Amino acid sequence: MSALASIDPRDWIRDVPDFPKPGILFKDITPLLGEPKAFRAVIDRLAEQFAGRKIDAVAAAEARGFIFGAPLALALGVGFVPIRKPGKLPYQTVSLEYALEYGTDRLEMHNDAVGPGQRILLLDDVLATGGTMRACRDLVQRTGAEVVACAFVVELSFLKGREMLKPCEVSSLIIY
Amino acid sequence: MSALASIDPRDWIRDVPDFPKPGILFKDITPLLGEPKAFRAVIDRLAEQFAGRKIDAVAAAEARGFIFGAPLALALGVGFVPIRKPGKLPYQTVSLEYALEYGTDRLEMHNDAVGPGQRILLLDDVLATGGTMRACRDLVQRTGAEVVACAFVVELSFLKGREMLKPCEVSSLIIY
Repeated sequence: MSALASIDPRDWIRDVPDFPKPGILFKDITPLLGEPKAFRAVIDRLAEQFAGRKIDAVAAAEARGFIFGAPLALALGVGFVPIRKPGKLPYQTVSLEYALEYGTDRLEMHNDAVGPGQRILLLDDVLATGGTMRACRDLVQRTGAEVVACAFVVELSFLKGREMLKPCEVSSLIIY
Repeated sequence: MSALASIDPRDWIRDVPDFPKPGILFKDITPLLGEPKAFRAVIDRLAEQFAGRKIDAVAAAEARGFIFGAPLALALGVGFVPIRKPGKLPYQTVSLEYALEYGTDRLEMHNDAVGPGQRILLLDDVLATGGTMRACRDLVQRTGAEVVACAFVVELSFLKGREMLKPCEVSSLIIY
């Protein structure tokens, strides 16, 4: 058993009450980022899980998704595709508007980043209500690419975001 | 010589004219992210360069800084510290307001992320005018930590951002 196998990443996830608004208990992943053994263990476990799945690229939405998505792409030896807020990507994009609790938001991806026949792994740090990930999934699928799975470091299961992502495979390292 | 040693990351940097506004030739690093050999070569070279420098953590500003900063921290075996726009970090923060071309902006970092005696490597994808990196440097120094260097994947030398960061060590993999 390697030293990393005994690490429980939960030990580096901090509860922050009343963020981003009163009554919400926020799962803060920054202590995990600060502990290289724990951060490495998380990336290694995700990579191990998806190593045999013929992934062509890892895609993730800004900003926290980038922190896990880029290392996971490198660990799998595949490309990394950033999904961004409007106006941030310089080249031609595909974009998708999606509903928030109040109003709408939009995500963009370069139109040459993924396409038909490609198998894409989507990753984010936390699965809450699932709205952002659903938009990412729809955006990738719109290009003709296949979403192999929606993966998360942390899942807040009581928010039932997993339902929102059906029929996609959903995979979370840590489930609260 | 390893296969990665022969890679020139410039081959995966794309010029996008008139972004974000007319007359600007934008250096787009997304093709590099899409080519795992090139992305890996960039991270390996940065890690090799700073491996002997007793770095305690890598810090980077959202969002593109996260894409290179997190893998570099993992490659060096040190923690990663995200520097964010206001209101994004859940725990107590230190923050710093800085001037933009028009108006001001603010960056925040968790107040337990770095502190006195620590040696911090700052990283961003592109050095343009240097304003964001100078704010990051000042923010880290305000905590009592030492900034070992400001590192970049790409430097646009004609914008003289390097001057802005004096007396900090500035290091760029690719200089235009």
